[in-house]
Amino acid sequence: MPVLLFKTEFASLPPWQAALRERMPELEVRLWPALGDAADIEYALVWKPPPDLFSALPNLKVIFSLGAGLDHLLKGVYLPPGVPVVRMQDSALTEGMCEYAVYMALRFLRRMAVYEAQQRSREWRHHLPQPRACELRAGVLGMGVIGRAVAGKLAAMGFEVAGWSRTSKRVADVQNFHGAGQLQAFLERSDILVCVLPLTEATRGILDRARMTRLPRGAFIINIGRGEHLVEQDLLELLEEGHIAGAALDVFAAEPLPDEHPFWRHPRITVTPHNASVTNPDTASAHVVDNIRRAMRGQPLTSVVDLTRGY
Amino acid sequence: MPVLLFKTEFASLPPWQAALRERMPELEVRLWPALGDAADIEYALVWKPPPDLFSALPNLKVIFSLGAGLDHLLKGVYLPPGVPVVRMQDSALTEGMCEYAVYMALRFLRRMAVYEAQQRSREWRHHLPQPRACELRAGVLGMGVIGRAVAGKLAAMGFEVAGWSRTSKRVADVQNFHGAGQLQAFLERSDILVCVLPLTEATRGILDRARMTRLPRGAFIINIGRGEHLVEQDLLELLEEGHIAGAALDVFAAEPLPDEHPFWRHPRITVTPHNASVTNPDTASAHVVDNIRRAMRGQPLTSVVDLTRGY
Repeated sequence: MPVLLFKTEFASLPPWQAALRERMPELEVRLWPALGDAADIEYALVWKPPPDLFSALPNLKVIFSLGAGLDHLLKGVYLPPGVPVVRMQDSALTEGMCEYAVYMALRFLRRMAVYEAQQRSREWRHHLPQPRACELRAGVLGMGVIGRAVAGKLAAMGFEVAGWSRTSKRVADVQNFHGAGQLQAFLERSDILVCVLPLTEATRGILDRARMTRLPRGAFIINIGRGEHLVEQDLLELLEEGHIAGAALDVFAAEPLPDEHPFWRHPRITVTPHNASVTNPDTASAHVVDNIRRAMRGQPLTSVVDLTRGY
Repeated sequence: MPVLLFKTEFASLPPWQAALRERMPELEVRLWPALGDAADIEYALVWKPPPDLFSALPNLKVIFSLGAGLDHLLKGVYLPPGVPVVRMQDSALTEGMCEYAVYMALRFLRRMAVYEAQQRSREWRHHLPQPRACELRAGVLGMGVIGRAVAGKLAAMGFEVAGWSRTSKRVADVQNFHGAGQLQAFLERSDILVCVLPLTEATRGILDRARMTRLPRGAFIINIGRGEHLVEQDLLELLEEGHIAGAALDVFAAEPLPDEHPFWRHPRITVTPHNASVTNPDTASAHVVDNIRRAMRGQPLTSVVDLTRGY
């Protein structure tokens, strides 16, 4: 009987246990730190594992990341050689990211924050003319599964969309930029920048003063990647200087965002508590169970992480 | 040389004059009330015309509505027999309505008003689990050009969408309800109701207590039709009773919304100042000029209003 160890920080076990059991009744799920006989454990589904967790599991076959990001797993955690790490593939998680990006892009396009403030002061005033979505250029930084979906939904809402990624990714209706050589041109044409990059040593601090200054004056930034992608002090300065018009931030260098952080009260920053999307047990368990079955049959796994590039 | 009379309340003449001139340099545009020789005027592009305006124009050939709604033109205004009324067809206006409906639907789905309030009190708190868009049923009341586009965009964002109209309208991925006999079933399955009906004697007050009570408990209402579609006191009572979860309202029985109106300060009502969309001179002038050319050549016009049904 296959045994899976579940370790999380924020998700609760019961919905995962129910979803996994429905798809694979014979799977035994153990909740960390109650390992039982560690030699039984062949699969681990984890978020922010302790650095030495996997060294205690001699028969581990597959490590599953509970979230779309892998930074929680690849930095400072001992990974047994030869044990594949599988990234989360979850359609509901991807949908949530799309909803958040589209919502915040429309909020900027339609000046909704201004209208909300007007309601609070009972002010009836138009801000016209109103640009069309096709007059704003959205740029998606990071064109993995989530980035490509976000780009497609922004295009469906009428924005002129481009995507940038390390290697070339072709998506219908989305202009393709790739590699370090095309990053500047990508930034220069992006009125709305959506960051959905993985956090790696190559992307940490990518949104610094130099890069953000390349955006057109009046650009809007949506960060649903990781807080460490963005240099927070640089953003505050560029908002102050008027180069950046505003930002919608779901992720921060420190989470929860500290009470005294200036983002909370900034009139042109929307803060959300890292809720752009979460892994959905119902949809995500299909991916986990499929890969457990593949491992049991000795078939190749899907969505295996390339540990050298970090995603 | 064709002469067009322009009468508006909110739009400004210069962008219209520039857009019309670019498409039809020979068109002379006169700004009401400076008619000049009224016998020259063959075309009128109007918003809220004075009741007797058209009786002063002996050679009028076509009346164009400046907005998507026709109620400003069909109620209490003398319409010369045999002069066709043409409704506005404007892709940018339709896009604006779609943006507003999608934005407000996502705002409800993702509880964004709650997160905005949390930011104001510097509160970092999740509200999970988060339903998926496909778990909410959006219903579009009124399936004309705008309603069909709104339904399509809501479906593209993942909502389960149905539309209701007087006569059957088939749209891909949208369930079709029509006629008085199917209104109740349509309301009963609509967690998010978007009203984009034309205002006629048949639709005035359609969103009253009886109809809104048919919506599932916890439903959300988006009104981008006309204020007179919704019985405002009934909505306040149903919000109070908890049957309706909230509403995003762009149109009101009295506009501007009076300073003392309870909607302004209601925590579960979003008020916008009738800005969901406006006619865009650049795109809309193509429709106007095309119909002027058709009239000049004696060809059939497009988008002619059926005066007996009122849209």
